[in-house]
Amino acid sequence: MNRADILAARKRIRAHVRQTPLLGAPALDALAGRQVWLKAECLQHTGSFKARGGWSALSALSPEIRARGVIAYSSGNHAQGVARAAAAYGVPAVIVMPSDAPGVKIANTRALGAEVVLYDRATEDRDAIGAAMAAARGLTLVKPFDDVQVIAGQGTIGLELLEDLPDGWQGEVLVPCGGGGMTAGIALALEGSGAQVRPVEPEGFDDTARSLVSGRIDRNVRTSGSVCDAIVTPSPGAMTFPIMQRLCGFGLAVSDDQALQAMVLAFRHLRVVLEPGGAVALAAALFAPGLGPQVVAIGSGGNVDEAIFAAALARFGS
Amino acid sequence: MNRADILAARKRIRAHVRQTPLLGAPALDALAGRQVWLKAECLQHTGSFKARGGWSALSALSPEIRARGVIAYSSGNHAQGVARAAAAYGVPAVIVMPSDAPGVKIANTRALGAEVVLYDRATEDRDAIGAAMAAARGLTLVKPFDDVQVIAGQGTIGLELLEDLPDGWQGEVLVPCGGGGMTAGIALALEGSGAQVRPVEPEGFDDTARSLVSGRIDRNVRTSGSVCDAIVTPSPGAMTFPIMQRLCGFGLAVSDDQALQAMVLAFRHLRVVLEPGGAVALAAALFAPGLGPQVVAIGSGGNVDEAIFAAALARFGS
Repeated sequence: MNRADILAARKRIRAHVRQTPLLGAPALDALAGRQVWLKAECLQHTGSFKARGGWSALSALSPEIRARGVIAYSSGNHAQGVARAAAAYGVPAVIVMPSDAPGVKIANTRALGAEVVLYDRATEDRDAIGAAMAAARGLTLVKPFDDVQVIAGQGTIGLELLEDLPDGWQGEVLVPCGGGGMTAGIALALEGSGAQVRPVEPEGFDDTARSLVSGRIDRNVRTSGSVCDAIVTPSPGAMTFPIMQRLCGFGLAVSDDQALQAMVLAFRHLRVVLEPGGAVALAAALFAPGLGPQVVAIGSGGNVDEAIFAAALARFGS
Repeated sequence: MNRADILAARKRIRAHVRQTPLLGAPALDALAGRQVWLKAECLQHTGSFKARGGWSALSALSPEIRARGVIAYSSGNHAQGVARAAAAYGVPAVIVMPSDAPGVKIANTRALGAEVVLYDRATEDRDAIGAAMAAARGLTLVKPFDDVQVIAGQGTIGLELLEDLPDGWQGEVLVPCGGGGMTAGIALALEGSGAQVRPVEPEGFDDTARSLVSGRIDRNVRTSGSVCDAIVTPSPGAMTFPIMQRLCGFGLAVSDDQALQAMVLAFRHLRVVLEPGGAVALAAALFAPGLGPQVVAIGSGGNVDEAIFAAALARFGS
């Protein structure tokens, strides 16, 4: 895939997603010691950039295939992105979620009209459940990141950056990275622009950063245990990794505490609400060594756990 | 003054203020029982719409007059709006603030380069201090609301609404109302459009709503004691009131608890941070009786007291 896929995705989705603002504040620049912009994808429909990929994927299907419906595995943001697009097209969406997913995410996904199928992580096989349903009903699987149209949808963020940043801008674009769909998409959109894209992950879950160093797909030892759960994946994708390998600079990792502190600073200085996983790029912009003087951090919102937010405010608030 | 003043203000300020997004969420519409949009002025530079009026006022001065500097009385958002514009023009800004103003507001105003002059509310006369400084240094006073260019600057919000709402939209536009600069400006910008502008105030401080009923400028009995302190003023302005009287529908009042709950709901569903006074219009959109099916609420941020926010999250959070 290439930049043309992203331009095509933008044509399909632009009337249906928000062009999110690029926010900054002098106080934040002073804290960071560099100029920091936040691309506020938390203001996207459903609260996360996943609304882009979801719409891109659904809109790329033929009307006949789309009409049968789609299926996705997700406990959160991708579920809502797919559900929103399916509802707008008036086609069925089946979302397979673990039965121990947060109640608010299950409720939000159902509120968007999706059929939520719960499974027991300990005793049931998610893929078998999904495959059986897909086969029986002719549903199309929308993968969370290893899909050309999903990557292209997330990549539209990069096209917006090209419009909003000064011509010839040569800073670094930091992207919260799980499976790498958004990172790869933005890197493709910015290819040749002079901007340097870097994935940012939670410490201990830096599979992509390590893979970029080793040159092969490395896996995380653990797959849970970070407050940044929204971006914890076992490894970069088979489709996203080669793109990141070709186009991205070194990756960065931030601690859970840095992500939580960035969340509080975004609240205070930019007046937007990020979830911890969606705040890792801003955390790197604020706290990571070795970055240049001009940085854009992509921020995402999703479903913020209000107890976690309150605890962060108590620890890092003024 | 009329709509032409607002169009002229927009030409002067548009490269220097943000065109703020109009945000909405299905979950919020369901709660309200109507379609609710939030014009997110909390994402404006300095966190509030006051950045518009400040720039509009400074940019309307002749270069010679402006070069001597400006002075404003404000404990908060207007101070920062004026200070930001003055800093950008490279001219002095003196802000006269009560010595018991919140430390964060004093610090933020100083961070924008302003000279902050503190006075003791119990023993000193603010106006005398300011007048003496203005005379000695040739400073121009920028009033917080009873000023044509300030009203015109805040009114640019209305011009943006005309661009962002569907053609011929005939809903209600709810505006947090202190002295009435923003309410009057938006009402002028929307004159003849079919939209109905309504001021929203805290209960017990509904001077504008009562004045609209009585047909003369009524005052509040108290001038402090609401968590919505950012919009508590003694009375509507001599310049703003006739405009509101001519163009606005009836006013609305919300309780402090409704404002705090709206602040939490904006956090949860729209992922933006409002201050209590900047959340009253959203509170009315959500909780007030007698409104129609289509409402835009203007939301503003300013400097959110994080202890108040945390307490609201504990009470109204999920």
